Amino acid sequence: MNLMLFDKPFESTRIESTDPRAQHLIKVLRVRVGSKVYIGFVNGLRARAEVSLIESDGAISLIVSSTEPAPIPLPVRLLLGLPRPHTAKRILFEAASMGVKDLHFFEAEHSEPSYAKSSMWTTNEWKERIRLGAEQSFGTHIPEVGMHSDLQSAISFLQGQGVHVALDNYEADENLGQSLKQGSQPAVLALGPERGWSKLERDIFRENSWKLAHLGPQVLRLETACTAAVAVVSTTLGFYDIQTNTII
Amino acid sequence: MNLMLFDKPFESTRIESTDPRAQHLIKVLRVRVGSKVYIGFVNGLRARAEVSLIESDGAISLIVSSTEPAPIPLPVRLLLGLPRPHTAKRILFEAASMGVKDLHFFEAEHSEPSYAKSSMWTTNEWKERIRLGAEQSFGTHIPEVGMHSDLQSAISFLQGQGVHVALDNYEADENLGQSLKQGSQPAVLALGPERGWSKLERDIFRENSWKLAHLGPQVLRLETACTAAVAVVSTTLGFYDIQTNTII
Repeated sequence: MNLMLFDKPFESTRIESTDPRAQHLIKVLRVRVGSKVYIGFVNGLRARAEVSLIESDGAISLIVSSTEPAPIPLPVRLLLGLPRPHTAKRILFEAASMGVKDLHFFEAEHSEPSYAKSSMWTTNEWKERIRLGAEQSFGTHIPEVGMHSDLQSAISFLQGQGVHVALDNYEADENLGQSLKQGSQPAVLALGPERGWSKLERDIFRENSWKLAHLGPQVLRLETACTAAVAVVSTTLGFYDIQTNTII
Repeated sequence: MNLMLFDKPFESTRIESTDPRAQHLIKVLRVRVGSKVYIGFVNGLRARAEVSLIESDGAISLIVSSTEPAPIPLPVRLLLGLPRPHTAKRILFEAASMGVKDLHFFEAEHSEPSYAKSSMWTTNEWKERIRLGAEQSFGTHIPEVGMHSDLQSAISFLQGQGVHVALDNYEADENLGQSLKQGSQPAVLALGPERGWSKLERDIFRENSWKLAHLGPQVLRLETACTAAVAVVSTTLGFYDIQTNTII
């Protein structure tokens, strides 16, 4: 992890020796009393913290010495036809590391019903993947994750300003970069499960005025397409730099 | 695999039962005599082939029934500071699936010397990863892979027309999309190893008139950054559609 996240802001804290963060501080970062480390508060500030005490059992005390703003989330939202759990794990990590605002899932016609019953979703593993992605990014934003009963409900939930694009290899009118020419933001991007969208799903997107766009003639793995699409949108929109208050 | 690749073009062929492709045809695609499958010839055409014979030991005979052009490679070349073998494996697959022209590696100052000695590089595993990526893409292009002795040699090898950009989190002047505004092509993209570029390496890029560009304030895993950068460049340049002879 690049940034150790804590759920609530503090000025000083004591981390129990059984907390994985205490073990990371000692075993990976090899801190001593006086060492400074980067930490972050979920959906809040980044901070520098100093190790003030290491107890004999490995419990660690930290004191915050300074704070700074963390990157703000990208104005990008994802809607995904429920993919294989292994694919979903990668997408949760990568999308969180890229700073997407939130992720929404629904069982698409070409999703397998077993996907939703995976231990990835029925335990806290999905939350862990999101958190690891945020820590990788050196950011503090934890994207929200929504599960929707069907495509129309998800689309209604995600309606609003900005560009709405469903990625599609087969019936796209233009490439994703072209769909963004208007400079609209925010963007909502939909990607089907591994086996793609059904005819009905394409019709629903069109009825709701979504565009269909492609990422080129190559057939990409879903997790590759997802990273590629977020990158294209976020680079086209530009990145908001909280330090200088400008688009970079 | 989406497309079964063969090294040399043929009109008909017999695949030995010990060939993994014969096993894939029988166990995964469950072909029978008369079944049609998609195949491809390395760096050549895609084809439809019909199963003309299945022998009792599992050997399979194929006859080509029609051919079509495969996607042409993207005008994108990659230069990478040698990363961890696990990261390299992912990059080889993903870059090949996206259709990059070629990939070049060198031992960067922040690469570990052990990386080059990994079995990934000393066996044929790296070739296998590239081939699997091409098969995923439903394409036939196998990117060439070059190993260079140092950064300056690699840069000299990759000089020529188009835009040359090194991705950098720390000293970039603009985001990758902005570096491409001139519409120059082809593009050569350099990404450092996990620990980034050294000061000397940044100087060498600048002396050789490469731009330094970023992908936003989030710190991405190298393989995520690589996929993101290729996507941004290829979508900005547009994709050449060999069927219609246009940029799509």
